Amino acid sequence: MEEKILLAHGSGGKLSHDLIREVFLPAFDNPMLRPLDDSAQVVIEGKRLALSTDSYVVKPLFYKGGDIGRLAVFGTVNDLAMCGASPLFLSASFVIEEGFPIATLKKVVHSMKVASEEAGVMIVTGDTKVVEKGSADQIFINTAGVGFIEEGVHLSSSNVKPGDRVIVSGFMGDHGISVITEREGLGFRQKVASDCAPLNRLVKKMLEFNPSIHCLRDPTRGGLATSINEIAQQSKVGICIEEASIPIRESVRGVCEMLGFDPLYVANEGKLVAFVESKIAERILGVLKADEMGVDSAIIGEVVSEPRGKVILKTSIGGSRILDMLTGDLLPRIC
Amino acid sequence: MEEKILLAHGSGGKLSHDLIREVFLPAFDNPMLRPLDDSAQVVIEGKRLALSTDSYVVKPLFYKGGDIGRLAVFGTVNDLAMCGASPLFLSASFVIEEGFPIATLKKVVHSMKVASEEAGVMIVTGDTKVVEKGSADQIFINTAGVGFIEEGVHLSSSNVKPGDRVIVSGFMGDHGISVITEREGLGFRQKVASDCAPLNRLVKKMLEFNPSIHCLRDPTRGGLATSINEIAQQSKVGICIEEASIPIRESVRGVCEMLGFDPLYVANEGKLVAFVESKIAERILGVLKADEMGVDSAIIGEVVSEPRGKVILKTSIGGSRILDMLTGDLLPRIC
Repeated sequence: MEEKILLAHGSGGKLSHDLIREVFLPAFDNPMLRPLDDSAQVVIEGKRLALSTDSYVVKPLFYKGGDIGRLAVFGTVNDLAMCGASPLFLSASFVIEEGFPIATLKKVVHSMKVASEEAGVMIVTGDTKVVEKGSADQIFINTAGVGFIEEGVHLSSSNVKPGDRVIVSGFMGDHGISVITEREGLGFRQKVASDCAPLNRLVKKMLEFNPSIHCLRDPTRGGLATSINEIAQQSKVGICIEEASIPIRESVRGVCEMLGFDPLYVANEGKLVAFVESKIAERILGVLKADEMGVDSAIIGEVVSEPRGKVILKTSIGGSRILDMLTGDLLPRIC
Repeated sequence: MEEKILLAHGSGGKLSHDLIREVFLPAFDNPMLRPLDDSAQVVIEGKRLALSTDSYVVKPLFYKGGDIGRLAVFGTVNDLAMCGASPLFLSASFVIEEGFPIATLKKVVHSMKVASEEAGVMIVTGDTKVVEKGSADQIFINTAGVGFIEEGVHLSSSNVKPGDRVIVSGFMGDHGISVITEREGLGFRQKVASDCAPLNRLVKKMLEFNPSIHCLRDPTRGGLATSINEIAQQSKVGICIEEASIPIRESVRGVCEMLGFDPLYVANEGKLVAFVESKIAERILGVLKADEMGVDSAIIGEVVSEPRGKVILKTSIGGSRILDMLTGDLLPRIC
């Protein structure tokens, strides 16, 4: 392991995983942390709850389709939803750089208020710290959240089985491309909007239709490729993906080609990937497509027994290759 | 209100309260947030839970008697305990500056592990973000936590009544003086150690003895003076404090005199202030003194009906004066 923290340790990709496995897991190890799902599942007084936390350091603070406030609310709402929990209450904690305009803070806070109403959650507790000018970059927001998990719902990245179908709920890469074009001031005629959105109602519909869904994940940092690699490793299965079936906007594809990015590694903030038994896959796809948040959903592949822990991409031109986790730091501070 | 965020907005004092009342409360307003206690009390599936969050930006990271890791665990444990909750599970989220030594991160994480064992809580979920060199000062840690509140326990800053006695659980000001002497490199022969400690077991003993305690608060940022001003305002009572009865170490008094600080405004991280009915005050004091964390406890004053919302300090020389909330930024980045 490198002796110093690199930007890539925060990428969500390979170095992030190394850090978790070599620093955090050995210290904090416990049965709730070990699954490394998007939320931890705990039991308090006989009730199953999900807990999740994320700090948001996105740069710039505002971009087409979103801002750090919406991201901070939806990001944690989605992490709870991915464990099948109904998100209920959030905390919000701010680290603010001295000199930050109060008008901008109000704008961010208003955005969090609107986002929490959209998601149907309440921000019930908070904290504010201020550091000297130059000791932080404008504002960092942490949200943590708690949600309730209904009986019969057992989602986990270790549940996935050969034969399962892989479904994505829409276009991949919108969020990352929105942020990076805003950050770099790239003057495209039509800017891509972030897909930042709360997924909890969509997940609720899916689970009401069939609570036996095996696994949900929101492919944020590190993108689709990294998320499904995590699942392949944790469920000890192979995952076979058809490149041609992955929904990617032409505009996103264009920016990616120009900047040398692979859209499969670009962050999403309002999309999920679902692993479901093949016999219910088409009907789950129907449930997704019937919701405005899932109209562009697609079945993109299936789970196989070999090669264990690997993702195979069947390319559009008929070949196939290993699709690895993100290495390096494609897009720092994307969320 | 100032147009830009000042260090004093993070002081825990008057400007922090202005920010909460003018920016955060109007946006997020709900019955769980409104009491502005150290934790929010929520009900999930009929169970009463407390939720709390704090971000830690203390500088330097290590000081006599503690470090940012211990602080991050105990700070949130204590905020839960102040609402009478048994702290159970914590989240931990890190914002790290590129280039931060991994060996130092391991030291901080180890410290969090030891602290969570001491407090009897588990860190079950987490997050790591990395920002570019110069975009954060080394490392900021957020912890959020959830705890369970037993039947019959109803602590709140709005419960306090005239006639109540005010008890502190030991010496005031140790944490702030430890951090500031370390930060400024002041070469005192005997350095003051931070009082950083988990208060949940002490609170449990107090509540087992008598669950009808009215209010608990840990006087962190802004110190004892600010905390009891908050209580006076929220309970709409006067609070009358005897200066001579407040336990303050000679060493802390000495550093304060030299640096021009009032120890009543200096942060504590392992002390509580309790408001209890006068008829049980001596026995609660006994419970505190019987525990090693409370041996230096003292009754320091009483609650009166007038002047409402104010704190009166009866000075050692026989006078009396209004003791206001902290104004300005006494000690930035103390926690």
